[in-house]
Amino acid sequence: MKLSSLYANETPFLGARRADGIVNVSAALPGWPTDVGALLRSPAHDARALADVVARTAASALLRDDEVRFRPVLPAPGKLLCLGLNYVDHAAENAVKPPEYPVVFGRYPTSLVGHGEPLVRPSVSTHFDYEAELVVVIGKTCRNVSRAQALDHVAGYTLLNDGSIRDYQLRTHQWTIGKNFDATGALGPELVTADELPLGAKGLVLRGLLNGKVMQEANTSDMIFSVADAIAILSEVMTLEAGDMIATGTPGGVGFVRNPPVFLKPGDVFEVEIERVGTLRNHVIAEAGP
Amino acid sequence: MKLSSLYANETPFLGARRADGIVNVSAALPGWPTDVGALLRSPAHDARALADVVARTAASALLRDDEVRFRPVLPAPGKLLCLGLNYVDHAAENAVKPPEYPVVFGRYPTSLVGHGEPLVRPSVSTHFDYEAELVVVIGKTCRNVSRAQALDHVAGYTLLNDGSIRDYQLRTHQWTIGKNFDATGALGPELVTADELPLGAKGLVLRGLLNGKVMQEANTSDMIFSVADAIAILSEVMTLEAGDMIATGTPGGVGFVRNPPVFLKPGDVFEVEIERVGTLRNHVIAEAGP
Repeated sequence: MKLSSLYANETPFLGARRADGIVNVSAALPGWPTDVGALLRSPAHDARALADVVARTAASALLRDDEVRFRPVLPAPGKLLCLGLNYVDHAAENAVKPPEYPVVFGRYPTSLVGHGEPLVRPSVSTHFDYEAELVVVIGKTCRNVSRAQALDHVAGYTLLNDGSIRDYQLRTHQWTIGKNFDATGALGPELVTADELPLGAKGLVLRGLLNGKVMQEANTSDMIFSVADAIAILSEVMTLEAGDMIATGTPGGVGFVRNPPVFLKPGDVFEVEIERVGTLRNHVIAEAGP
Repeated sequence: MKLSSLYANETPFLGARRADGIVNVSAALPGWPTDVGALLRSPAHDARALADVVARTAASALLRDDEVRFRPVLPAPGKLLCLGLNYVDHAAENAVKPPEYPVVFGRYPTSLVGHGEPLVRPSVSTHFDYEAELVVVIGKTCRNVSRAQALDHVAGYTLLNDGSIRDYQLRTHQWTIGKNFDATGALGPELVTADELPLGAKGLVLRGLLNGKVMQEANTSDMIFSVADAIAILSEVMTLEAGDMIATGTPGGVGFVRNPPVFLKPGDVFEVEIERVGTLRNHVIAEAGP
Protein backbone atom coordinates (compact mmCIF):
# COMPACT_ATOMS: atom_id res chain seq x y z
CA MET A 1 0.00 0.00 0.00
CA LYS A 2 1.14 3.53 -0.78
CA LEU A 3 -0.52 6.05 1.52
CA SER A 4 -0.37 9.82 1.38
CA SER A 5 -1.51 12.95 3.23
CA LEU A 6 -3.12 15.24 0.67
CA TYR A 7 -5.17 18.33 0.08
CA ALA A 8 -7.80 18.88 -2.58
CA ASN A 9 -9.49 22.28 -2.59
CA GLU A 10 -7.88 23.00 0.80
CA THR A 11 -9.56 19.95 2.38
CA PRO A 12 -7.10 17.53 3.96
CA PHE A 13 -7.59 13.86 3.22
CA LEU A 14 -5.91 10.48 3.35
CA GLY A 15 -4.93 9.12 -0.06
CA ALA A 16 -3.96 5.68 -1.33
CA ARG A 17 -2.32 5.04 -4.69
CA ARG A 18 -3.69 2.63 -7.23
CA ALA A 19 -2.08 1.99 -10.62
CA ASP A 20 -4.80 4.11 -12.25
CA GLY A 21 -4.91 7.03 -9.77
CA ILE A 22 -5.28 8.16 -6.18
CA VAL A 23 -8.14 6.96 -3.96
CA ASN A 24 -9.66 9.52 -1.60
CA VAL A 25 -9.84 7.23 1.43
CA SER A 26 -11.36 9.94 3.62
CA ALA A 27 -14.36 10.31 1.29
CA ALA A 28 -15.09 6.59 1.64
CA LEU A 29 -14.35 6.32 5.36
CA PRO A 30 -15.72 9.42 7.09
CA GLY A 31 -14.49 9.76 10.64
CA TRP A 32 -11.16 8.12 9.83
CA PRO A 33 -7.94 10.06 10.36
CA THR A 34 -7.19 12.34 7.41
CA ASP A 35 -3.41 11.97 7.39
CA VAL A 36 -0.95 9.07 7.50
CA GLY A 37 0.49 9.99 10.89
CA ALA A 38 -2.91 10.17 12.57
CA LEU A 39 -3.82 6.87 10.91
CA LEU A 40 -0.75 5.16 12.39
CA ARG A 41 -1.49 6.60 15.83
CA SER A 42 -5.13 5.51 15.67
CA PRO A 43 -5.43 2.15 17.39
CA ALA A 44 -8.80 1.49 15.77
CA HIS A 45 -7.90 1.58 12.11
CA ASP A 46 -8.68 -1.56 10.21
CA ALA A 47 -6.22 -2.50 7.48
CA ARG A 48 -8.79 -4.71 5.77
CA ALA A 49 -11.35 -1.89 5.54
CA LEU A 50 -8.63 0.29 4.02
CA ALA A 51 -7.67 -2.37 1.49
CA ASP A 52 -11.34 -2.86 0.58
CA VAL A 53 -11.82 0.85 -0.09
CA VAL A 54 -8.73 0.97 -2.26
CA ALA A 55 -9.87 -2.06 -4.24
CA ARG A 56 -13.50 -1.11 -4.74
CA THR A 57 -13.29 2.62 -5.49
CA ALA A 58 -14.67 3.30 -8.97
CA ALA A 59 -12.11 4.44 -11.54
CA SER A 60 -14.26 7.52 -12.14
CA ALA A 61 -13.73 8.62 -8.52
CA LEU A 62 -9.93 8.49 -8.67
CA LEU A 63 -7.85 11.66 -8.50
CA ARG A 64 -4.89 12.50 -10.69
CA ASP A 65 -1.64 13.74 -9.12
CA ASP A 66 -2.27 17.17 -10.62
CA GLU A 67 -5.61 17.42 -8.80
CA VAL A 68 -4.09 17.14 -5.34
CA ARG A 69 -1.43 18.81 -3.21
CA PHE A 70 0.92 16.66 -1.19
CA ARG A 71 1.44 17.49 2.47
CA PRO A 72 4.49 16.10 4.30
CA VAL A 73 3.43 12.44 4.43
CA LEU A 74 3.39 12.60 8.24
CA PRO A 75 2.47 16.23 8.88
CA ALA A 76 2.86 16.32 12.67
CA PRO A 77 5.12 13.52 13.90
CA GLY A 78 5.96 13.12 17.56
CA LYS A 79 9.59 12.83 16.47
CA LEU A 80 11.61 12.99 13.28
CA LEU A 81 15.01 11.78 14.43
CA CYS A 82 17.76 12.17 11.85
CA LEU A 83 20.97 10.16 11.73
CA GLY A 84 24.04 12.09 10.65
CA LEU A 85 27.09 10.66 8.91
CA ASN A 86 25.48 7.22 8.41
CA TYR A 87 27.21 6.39 5.11
CA VAL A 88 30.98 5.85 5.04
CA ASP A 89 31.51 8.07 1.97
CA HIS A 90 29.57 10.98 3.50
CA ALA A 91 31.56 10.74 6.75
CA ALA A 92 34.75 10.72 4.65
CA GLU A 93 33.75 13.79 2.62
CA ASN A 94 33.13 15.58 5.95
CA ALA A 95 36.66 14.53 7.01
CA VAL A 96 35.39 12.61 10.04
CA LYS A 97 35.62 8.97 11.05
CA PRO A 98 32.48 6.85 10.71
CA PRO A 99 30.56 7.14 14.00
CA GLU A 100 30.63 4.28 16.50
CA TYR A 101 27.27 5.36 17.90
CA PRO A 102 24.54 7.13 15.92
CA VAL A 103 24.85 10.90 15.55
CA VAL A 104 21.28 12.16 16.07
CA PHE A 105 19.55 15.49 15.60
CA GLY A 106 15.91 16.45 15.08
CA ARG A 107 13.81 18.21 12.47
CA TYR A 108 10.51 19.87 13.29
CA PRO A 109 7.39 19.98 11.10
CA THR A 110 7.82 23.69 10.38
CA SER A 111 10.95 22.78 8.37
CA LEU A 112 9.10 20.39 6.04
CA VAL A 113 7.02 20.59 2.88
CA GLY A 114 5.31 17.91 0.85
CA HIS A 115 6.20 16.48 -2.56
CA GLY A 116 5.85 19.06 -5.31
CA GLU A 117 5.77 22.02 -2.95
CA PRO A 118 8.51 24.65 -3.10
CA LEU A 119 11.60 24.46 -0.93
CA VAL A 120 12.41 27.95 0.32
CA ARG A 121 15.96 29.33 0.29
CA PRO A 122 16.00 31.76 3.22
CA SER A 123 16.97 35.35 2.60
CA VAL A 124 19.76 35.19 5.20
CA SER A 125 21.87 32.52 3.48
CA THR A 126 22.80 31.10 0.08
CA HIS A 127 24.33 27.95 1.62
CA PHE A 128 21.27 25.75 0.99
CA ASP A 129 22.38 22.16 0.55
CA TYR A 130 20.49 18.95 -0.31
CA GLU A 131 20.59 15.51 1.34
CA ALA A 132 18.75 12.50 -0.11
CA GLU A 133 17.61 10.02 2.55
CA LEU A 134 15.50 6.97 3.31
CA VAL A 135 13.10 7.39 6.25
CA VAL A 136 11.70 4.55 8.31
CA VAL A 137 8.28 5.13 9.86
CA ILE A 138 7.40 3.41 13.14
CA GLY A 139 4.05 1.60 13.11
CA LYS A 140 4.00 0.01 16.56
CA THR A 141 5.19 1.79 19.68
CA CYS A 142 8.28 0.17 21.17
CA ARG A 143 11.01 0.55 23.80
CA ASN A 144 14.12 -1.57 24.34
CA VAL A 145 13.48 -3.68 21.27
CA SER A 146 16.19 -6.06 20.03
CA ARG A 147 17.71 -5.93 16.55
CA ALA A 148 15.97 -9.22 15.81
CA GLN A 149 12.53 -7.78 16.69
CA ALA A 150 13.11 -4.22 15.50
CA LEU A 151 11.62 -4.54 12.03
CA ASP A 152 8.33 -5.87 13.46
CA HIS A 153 7.66 -2.27 14.56
CA VAL A 154 8.02 -0.67 11.12
CA ALA A 155 4.95 0.63 9.28
CA GLY A 156 6.86 1.50 6.13
CA TYR A 157 9.26 3.84 4.43
CA THR A 158 9.35 7.24 2.79
CA LEU A 159 11.86 9.79 1.50
CA LEU A 160 13.43 12.93 2.94
CA ASN A 161 15.38 15.77 1.44
CA ASP A 162 17.17 16.76 4.64
CA GLY A 163 17.86 20.24 3.27
CA SER A 164 20.45 22.10 5.32
CA ILE A 165 21.56 25.71 5.67
CA ARG A 166 25.24 24.89 6.08
CA ASP A 167 26.63 28.17 7.41
CA TYR A 168 23.99 28.20 10.16
CA GLN A 169 24.40 24.46 10.78
CA LEU A 170 28.07 24.98 11.55
CA ARG A 171 27.75 28.15 13.65
CA THR A 172 27.78 25.97 16.76
CA HIS A 173 28.46 22.29 17.39
CA GLN A 174 24.73 21.51 17.55
CA TRP A 175 23.16 21.15 14.09
CA THR A 176 19.51 21.87 15.02
CA ILE A 177 19.45 25.42 13.65
CA GLY A 178 20.80 24.64 10.18
CA LYS A 179 18.39 21.73 9.85
CA ASN A 180 15.26 23.63 10.79
CA PHE A 181 14.83 26.67 8.60
CA ASP A 182 11.19 26.85 7.50
CA ALA A 183 10.36 24.86 4.36
CA THR A 184 13.94 23.71 3.70
CA GLY A 185 13.18 19.98 3.84
CA ALA A 186 10.73 17.74 2.05
CA LEU A 187 9.07 14.53 3.24
CA GLY A 188 7.17 12.10 1.06
CA PRO A 189 5.57 11.60 -1.34
CA GLU A 190 4.05 8.46 0.16
CA LEU A 191 4.42 5.94 2.93
CA VAL A 192 5.23 2.65 1.23
CA THR A 193 4.22 -0.10 3.60
CA ALA A 194 6.97 -2.47 4.67
CA ASP A 195 5.37 -5.50 3.00
CA GLU A 196 6.10 -3.97 -0.43
CA LEU A 197 9.87 -3.70 0.15
CA PRO A 198 12.81 -5.93 1.05
CA LEU A 199 13.26 -6.53 4.79
CA GLY A 200 14.69 -3.37 6.37
CA ALA A 201 14.49 -1.66 2.94
CA LYS A 202 17.93 -3.10 2.20
CA GLY A 203 19.53 -3.34 -1.21
CA LEU A 204 17.73 -0.38 -2.80
CA VAL A 205 19.46 2.19 -4.99
CA LEU A 206 19.14 5.71 -3.56
CA ARG A 207 19.83 8.79 -5.70
CA GLY A 208 19.80 12.54 -5.27
CA LEU A 209 19.39 14.47 -8.53
CA LEU A 210 19.87 18.19 -9.04
CA ASN A 211 18.15 19.43 -12.20
CA GLY A 212 18.24 15.83 -13.47
CA LYS A 213 21.94 15.27 -12.80
CA VAL A 214 22.90 12.53 -10.33
CA MET A 215 24.69 14.18 -7.37
CA GLN A 216 24.34 11.34 -4.85
CA GLU A 217 24.10 7.61 -5.51
CA ALA A 218 24.36 4.77 -3.04
CA ASN A 219 22.71 1.58 -1.95
CA THR A 220 20.65 1.47 1.24
CA SER A 221 22.74 -1.55 2.24
CA ASP A 222 25.73 0.82 2.59
CA MET A 223 24.39 2.41 5.79
CA ILE A 224 26.66 2.18 8.82
CA PHE A 225 23.66 1.69 11.14
CA SER A 226 20.93 -0.29 9.36
CA VAL A 227 17.23 0.34 9.93
CA ALA A 228 17.13 -2.50 12.47
CA ASP A 229 20.26 -1.17 14.20
CA ALA A 230 18.80 2.33 14.42
CA ILE A 231 15.50 1.16 15.92
CA ALA A 232 17.25 -1.08 18.45
CA ILE A 233 19.78 1.57 19.51
CA LEU A 234 17.31 4.48 19.69
CA SER A 235 14.68 2.42 21.50
CA GLU A 236 17.24 1.74 24.24
CA VAL A 237 17.04 5.48 24.90
CA MET A 238 13.44 6.42 24.25
CA THR A 239 10.02 5.11 23.38
CA LEU A 240 9.53 5.13 19.63
CA GLU A 241 5.85 5.84 19.13
CA ALA A 242 3.64 4.94 16.19
CA GLY A 243 4.16 7.72 13.65
CA ASP A 244 7.68 8.58 14.81
CA MET A 245 10.32 8.55 12.08
CA ILE A 246 14.03 7.91 11.74
CA ALA A 247 15.80 9.46 8.75
CA THR A 248 18.71 7.17 8.03
CA GLY A 249 21.29 9.66 6.78
CA THR A 250 22.59 10.74 3.43
CA PRO A 251 25.38 9.28 1.30
CA GLY A 252 28.30 11.18 -0.21
CA GLY A 253 27.87 13.82 -2.87
CA VAL A 254 26.34 16.71 -0.96
CA GLY A 255 27.00 20.19 -2.25
CA PHE A 256 28.99 22.09 0.36
CA VAL A 257 32.06 19.83 0.28
CA ARG A 258 32.33 19.94 -3.54
CA ASN A 259 34.96 22.07 -5.21
CA PRO A 260 33.53 24.47 -6.13
CA PRO A 261 30.61 24.11 -3.70
CA VAL A 262 27.14 23.50 -5.12
CA PHE A 263 24.14 25.06 -3.41
CA LEU A 264 20.44 25.05 -4.24
CA LYS A 265 19.21 28.26 -5.83
CA PRO A 266 15.82 29.51 -6.93
CA GLY A 267 14.64 27.62 -10.01
CA ASP A 268 16.53 24.43 -9.17
CA VAL A 269 14.73 21.10 -8.91
CA PHE A 270 15.95 18.44 -6.51
CA GLU A 271 14.78 14.84 -6.54
CA VAL A 272 15.25 12.10 -3.97
CA GLU A 273 14.71 8.75 -5.60
CA ILE A 274 14.80 5.28 -4.06
CA GLU A 275 13.77 2.32 -6.14
CA ARG A 276 10.34 0.96 -5.16
CA VAL A 277 9.87 3.77 -2.60
CA GLY A 278 9.30 6.56 -5.11
CA THR A 279 10.51 9.99 -6.14
CA LEU A 280 10.27 13.12 -4.02
CA ARG A 281 10.57 16.17 -6.28
CA ASN A 282 10.71 19.80 -5.19
CA HIS A 283 11.65 23.06 -6.81
CA VAL A 284 13.43 25.87 -5.02
CA ILE A 285 12.18 29.40 -4.58
CA ALA A 286 13.61 32.43 -2.79
CA GLU A 287 12.06 33.56 0.47
CA ALA A 288 9.68 36.42 -0.13
CA GLY A 289 11.11 39.77 0.93
CA PRO A 290 9.93 41.62 4.02
CA MET B 1 -3.15 33.20 35.69
CA LYS B 2 -1.48 29.89 36.50
CA LEU B 3 -2.66 27.15 34.17
CA SER B 4 -1.92 23.45 34.33
CA SER B 5 -2.52 20.19 32.47
CA LEU B 6 -3.82 17.68 34.97
CA TYR B 7 -5.39 14.29 35.50
CA ALA B 8 -7.96 13.35 38.10
CA ASN B 9 -9.10 9.72 38.08
CA GLU B 10 -7.29 9.27 34.73
CA THR B 11 -9.39 12.01 33.10
CA PRO B 12 -7.29 14.79 31.58
CA PHE B 13 -8.37 18.34 32.29
CA LEU B 14 -7.24 21.94 32.21
CA GLY B 15 -6.58 23.43 35.63
CA ALA B 16 -6.19 26.98 36.92
CA ARG B 17 -4.78 27.86 40.31
CA ARG B 18 -6.58 30.03 42.81
CA ALA B 19 -5.18 30.90 46.25
CA ASP B 20 -7.58 28.39 47.79
CA GLY B 21 -7.18 25.49 45.33
CA ILE B 22 -7.25 24.31 41.73
CA VAL B 23 -10.19 25.06 39.43
CA ASN B 24 -11.24 22.29 37.05
CA VAL B 25 -11.69 24.52 34.01
CA SER B 26 -12.70 21.60 31.78
CA ALA B 27 -15.66 20.78 34.02
CA ALA B 28 -16.97 24.33 33.63
CA LEU B 29 -16.16 24.71 29.94
CA PRO B 30 -16.97 21.44 28.18
CA GLY B 31 -15.63 21.31 24.66
CA TRP B 32 -12.62 23.43 25.56
CA PRO B 33 -9.10 22.02 25.13
CA THR B 34 -8.08 19.90 28.11
CA ASP B 35 -4.42 20.86 28.24
CA VAL B 36 -2.44 24.11 28.19
CA GLY B 37 -0.77 23.43 24.85
CA ALA B 38 -4.04 22.71 23.07
CA LEU B 39 -5.51 25.84 24.69
CA LEU B 40 -2.71 28.01 23.30
CA ARG B 41 -3.11 26.47 19.84
CA SER B 42 -6.86 26.97 19.88
CA PRO B 43 -7.68 30.23 18.15
CA ALA B 44 -11.15 30.34 19.67
CA HIS B 45 -10.33 30.40 23.37
CA ASP B 46 -11.65 33.38 25.23
CA ALA B 47 -9.44 34.70 28.03
CA ARG B 48 -12.38 36.47 29.64
CA ALA B 49 -14.47 33.29 29.80
CA LEU B 50 -11.50 31.56 31.40
CA ALA B 51 -11.04 34.32 33.99
CA ASP B 52 -14.77 34.25 34.77
CA VAL B 53 -14.68 30.50 35.42
CA VAL B 54 -11.67 30.86 37.70
CA ALA B 55 -13.35 33.68 39.62
CA ARG B 56 -16.80 32.17 40.01
CA THR B 57 -16.01 28.51 40.78
CA ALA B 58 -17.36 27.62 44.22
CA ALA B 59 -14.73 26.90 46.85
CA SER B 60 -16.40 23.52 47.43
CA ALA B 61 -15.59 22.54 43.83
CA LEU B 62 -11.87 23.24 44.08
CA LEU B 63 -9.31 20.45 43.99
CA ARG B 64 -6.32 20.07 46.25
CA ASP B 65 -2.88 19.37 44.80
CA ASP B 66 -3.00 15.87 46.28
CA GLU B 67 -6.21 15.12 44.37
CA VAL B 68 -4.66 15.64 40.94
CA ARG B 69 -1.71 14.39 38.91
CA PHE B 70 0.33 16.89 36.96
CA ARG B 71 1.09 16.17 33.33
CA PRO B 72 3.93 18.03 31.57
CA VAL B 73 2.31 21.46 31.40
CA LEU B 74 2.42 21.31 27.58
CA PRO B 75 2.09 17.58 26.95
CA ALA B 76 2.61 17.55 23.17
CA PRO B 77 4.42 20.68 21.98
CA GLY B 78 5.32 21.20 18.35
CA LYS B 79 8.83 22.04 19.55
CA LEU B 80 10.73 22.21 22.78
CA LEU B 81 13.94 23.95 21.74
CA CYS B 82 16.63 23.98 24.40
CA LEU B 83 19.48 26.47 24.62
CA GLY B 84 22.78 25.05 25.79
CA LEU B 85 25.51 26.96 27.64
CA ASN B 86 23.37 30.08 28.08
CA TYR B 87 24.85 31.17 31.42
CA VAL B 88 28.48 32.30 31.59
CA ASP B 89 29.27 30.19 34.68
CA HIS B 90 27.85 27.00 33.11
CA ALA B 91 29.87 27.58 29.93
CA ALA B 92 32.95 28.08 32.12
CA GLU B 93 32.40 24.89 34.13
CA ASN B 94 32.16 23.04 30.79
CA ALA B 95 35.50 24.63 29.83
CA VAL B 96 34.04 26.32 26.75
CA LYS B 97 33.73 29.95 25.74
CA PRO B 98 30.29 31.56 25.97
CA PRO B 99 28.55 30.96 22.64
CA GLU B 100 28.25 33.80 20.13
CA TYR B 101 25.14 32.21 18.64
CA PRO B 102 22.66 30.03 20.54
CA VAL B 103 23.54 26.36 20.92
CA VAL B 104 20.23 24.55 20.30
CA PHE B 105 19.02 20.98 20.72
CA GLY B 106 15.58 19.47 21.14
CA ARG B 107 13.71 17.41 23.69
CA TYR B 108 10.73 15.25 22.77
CA PRO B 109 7.60 14.64 24.88
CA THR B 110 8.59 11.03 25.61
CA SER B 111 11.46 12.43 27.70
CA LEU B 112 9.20 14.50 29.97
CA VAL B 113 7.09 13.96 33.06
CA GLY B 114 4.91 16.35 35.05
CA HIS B 115 5.46 17.90 38.47
CA GLY B 116 5.45 15.30 41.23
CA GLU B 117 5.89 12.35 38.86
CA PRO B 118 9.01 10.19 39.09
CA LEU B 119 12.09 10.86 37.03
CA VAL B 120 13.48 7.54 35.81
CA ARG B 121 17.19 6.74 35.95
CA PRO B 122 17.70 4.35 33.03
CA SER B 123 19.21 0.95 33.69
CA VAL B 124 22.02 1.55 31.17
CA SER B 125 23.62 4.51 32.96
CA THR B 126 24.23 6.04 36.38
CA HIS B 127 25.29 9.41 34.87
CA PHE B 128 21.91 11.09 35.40
CA ASP B 129 22.40 14.84 35.88
CA TYR B 130 20.01 17.69 36.66
CA GLU B 131 19.63 21.12 35.02
CA ALA B 132 17.31 23.80 36.40
CA GLU B 133 15.87 26.07 33.69
CA LEU B 134 13.34 28.76 32.87
CA VAL B 135 11.12 27.96 29.85
CA VAL B 136 9.35 30.56 27.74
CA VAL B 137 6.12 29.45 26.09
CA ILE B 138 5.07 31.01 22.78
CA GLY B 139 1.50 32.28 22.69
CA LYS B 140 1.28 33.85 19.25
CA THR B 141 2.83 32.29 16.16
CA CYS B 142 5.68 34.37 14.77
CA ARG B 143 8.51 34.42 12.23
CA ASN B 144 11.26 37.01 11.78
CA VAL B 145 10.22 38.98 14.80
CA SER B 146 12.48 41.75 16.11
CA ARG B 147 13.89 41.86 19.64
CA ALA B 148 11.63 44.83 20.32
CA GLN B 149 8.51 42.88 19.33
CA ALA B 150 9.60 39.45 20.58
CA LEU B 151 7.95 39.53 24.00
CA ASP B 152 4.55 40.32 22.46
CA HIS B 153 4.49 36.67 21.36
CA VAL B 154 4.99 35.15 24.79
CA ALA B 155 2.11 33.37 26.56
CA GLY B 156 4.04 32.81 29.74
CA TYR B 157 6.73 30.88 31.55
CA THR B 158 7.29 27.53 33.18
CA LEU B 159 10.13 25.39 34.56
CA LEU B 160 12.22 22.53 33.18
CA ASN B 161 14.53 20.04 34.75
CA ASP B 162 16.55 19.34 31.60
CA GLY B 163 17.73 16.01 33.00
CA SER B 164 20.65 14.58 31.04
CA ILE B 165 22.32 11.20 30.74
CA ARG B 166 25.84 12.59 30.45
CA ASP B 167 27.75 9.57 29.16
CA TYR B 168 25.24 9.12 26.34
CA GLN B 169 25.07 12.88 25.72
CA LEU B 170 28.81 12.95 25.07
CA ARG B 171 29.06 9.77 22.97
CA THR B 172 28.85 11.94 19.85
CA HIS B 173 28.96 15.68 19.23
CA GLN B 174 25.15 15.88 18.95
CA TRP B 175 23.45 15.95 22.36
CA THR B 176 19.98 14.69 21.32
CA ILE B 177 20.44 11.18 22.71
CA GLY B 178 21.54 12.14 26.22
CA LYS B 179 18.70 14.65 26.45
CA ASN B 180 15.93 12.26 25.42
CA PHE B 181 15.91 9.18 27.61
CA ASP B 182 12.32 8.44 28.60
CA ALA B 183 11.09 10.29 31.70
CA THR B 184 14.43 11.97 32.46
CA GLY B 185 13.10 15.54 32.28
CA ALA B 186 10.27 17.37 34.00
CA LEU B 187 8.16 20.28 32.76
CA GLY B 188 5.84 22.39 34.88
CA PRO B 189 4.12 22.62 37.24
CA GLU B 190 2.17 25.48 35.66
CA LEU B 191 2.22 28.05 32.91
CA VAL B 192 2.45 31.42 34.63
CA THR B 193 1.10 33.98 32.21
CA ALA B 194 3.47 36.75 31.22
CA ASP B 195 1.37 39.50 32.82
CA GLU B 196 2.23 38.09 36.27
CA LEU B 197 6.00 38.41 35.81
CA PRO B 198 8.59 41.08 34.99
CA LEU B 199 9.06 41.74 31.27
CA GLY B 200 11.02 38.87 29.76
CA ALA B 201 10.98 37.13 33.18
CA LYS B 202 14.13 39.08 34.01
CA GLY B 203 15.56 39.55 37.47
CA LEU B 204 14.20 36.36 39.02
CA VAL B 205 16.24 34.08 41.26
CA LEU B 206 16.53 30.55 39.85
CA ARG B 207 17.63 27.62 42.00
CA GLY B 208 18.18 23.92 41.59
CA LEU B 209 18.00 21.94 44.82
CA LEU B 210 19.04 18.33 45.38
CA ASN B 211 17.44 16.85 48.49
CA GLY B 212 16.92 20.39 49.74
CA LYS B 213 20.51 21.54 49.19
CA VAL B 214 21.09 24.40 46.74
CA MET B 215 23.20 23.06 43.85
CA GLN B 216 22.48 25.82 41.32
CA GLU B 217 21.64 29.45 41.94
CA ALA B 218 21.53 32.30 39.46
CA ASN B 219 19.44 35.20 38.33
CA THR B 220 17.50 34.99 35.07
CA SER B 221 19.12 38.31 34.12
CA ASP B 222 22.43 36.42 33.87
CA MET B 223 21.45 34.66 30.64
CA ILE B 224 23.75 35.25 27.69
CA PHE B 225 20.79 35.26 25.27
CA SER B 226 17.73 36.77 26.96
CA VAL B 227 14.20 35.58 26.28
CA ALA B 228 13.73 38.38 23.72
CA ASP B 229 17.09 37.54 22.09
CA ALA B 230 16.20 33.87 21.84
CA ILE B 231 12.80 34.51 20.24
CA ALA B 232 14.26 36.99 17.76
CA ILE B 233 17.20 34.78 16.79
CA LEU B 234 15.23 31.53 16.54
CA SER B 235 12.37 33.16 14.65
CA GLU B 236 14.86 34.22 11.98
CA VAL B 237 15.27 30.50 11.34
CA MET B 238 11.85 29.01 11.88
CA THR B 239 8.24 29.76 12.63
CA LEU B 240 7.64 29.66 16.36
CA GLU B 241 4.11 28.38 16.76
CA ALA B 242 1.70 28.91 19.63
CA GLY B 243 2.56 26.25 22.19
CA ASP B 244 6.21 25.95 21.14
CA MET B 245 8.73 26.38 23.94
CA ILE B 246 12.28 27.59 24.38
CA ALA B 247 14.19 26.35 27.42
CA THR B 248 16.66 29.07 28.24
CA GLY B 249 19.57 27.01 29.56
CA THR B 250 20.92 26.13 32.96
CA PRO B 251 23.38 28.03 35.17
CA GLY B 252 26.51 26.59 36.77
CA GLY B 253 26.44 23.93 39.43
CA VAL B 254 25.41 20.83 37.49
CA GLY B 255 26.59 17.49 38.82
CA PHE B 256 28.93 15.93 36.27
CA VAL B 257 31.59 18.66 36.45
CA ARG B 258 31.79 18.57 40.26
CA ASN B 259 34.66 16.90 42.02
CA PRO B 260 33.60 14.28 42.90
CA PRO B 261 30.73 14.18 40.37
CA VAL B 262 27.16 14.23 41.70
CA PHE B 263 24.49 12.22 39.91
CA LEU B 264 20.80 11.66 40.61
CA LYS B 265 20.07 8.29 42.17
CA PRO B 266 16.87 6.52 43.18
CA GLY B 267 15.33 8.21 46.20
CA ASP B 268 16.72 11.65 45.42
CA VAL B 269 14.41 14.66 45.10
CA PHE B 270 15.29 17.48 42.73
CA GLU B 271 13.55 20.85 42.71
CA VAL B 272 13.67 23.63 40.14
CA GLU B 273 12.55 26.86 41.74
CA ILE B 274 12.15 30.30 40.22
CA GLU B 275 10.61 33.07 42.25
CA ARG B 276 7.04 33.87 41.16
CA VAL B 277 7.11 31.02 38.59
CA GLY B 278 6.91 28.17 41.09
CA THR B 279 8.60 24.98 42.17
CA LEU B 280 8.92 21.85 40.04
CA ARG B 281 9.63 18.88 42.32
CA ASN B 282 10.37 15.32 41.23
CA HIS B 283 11.76 12.23 42.89
CA VAL B 284 14.00 9.74 41.16
CA ILE B 285 13.33 6.05 40.69
CA ALA B 286 15.27 3.32 38.96
CA GLU B 287 14.02 1.97 35.65
CA ALA B 288 12.09 -1.22 36.19
CA GLY B 289 14.02 -4.33 35.19
CA PRO B 290 13.20 -6.31 32.08
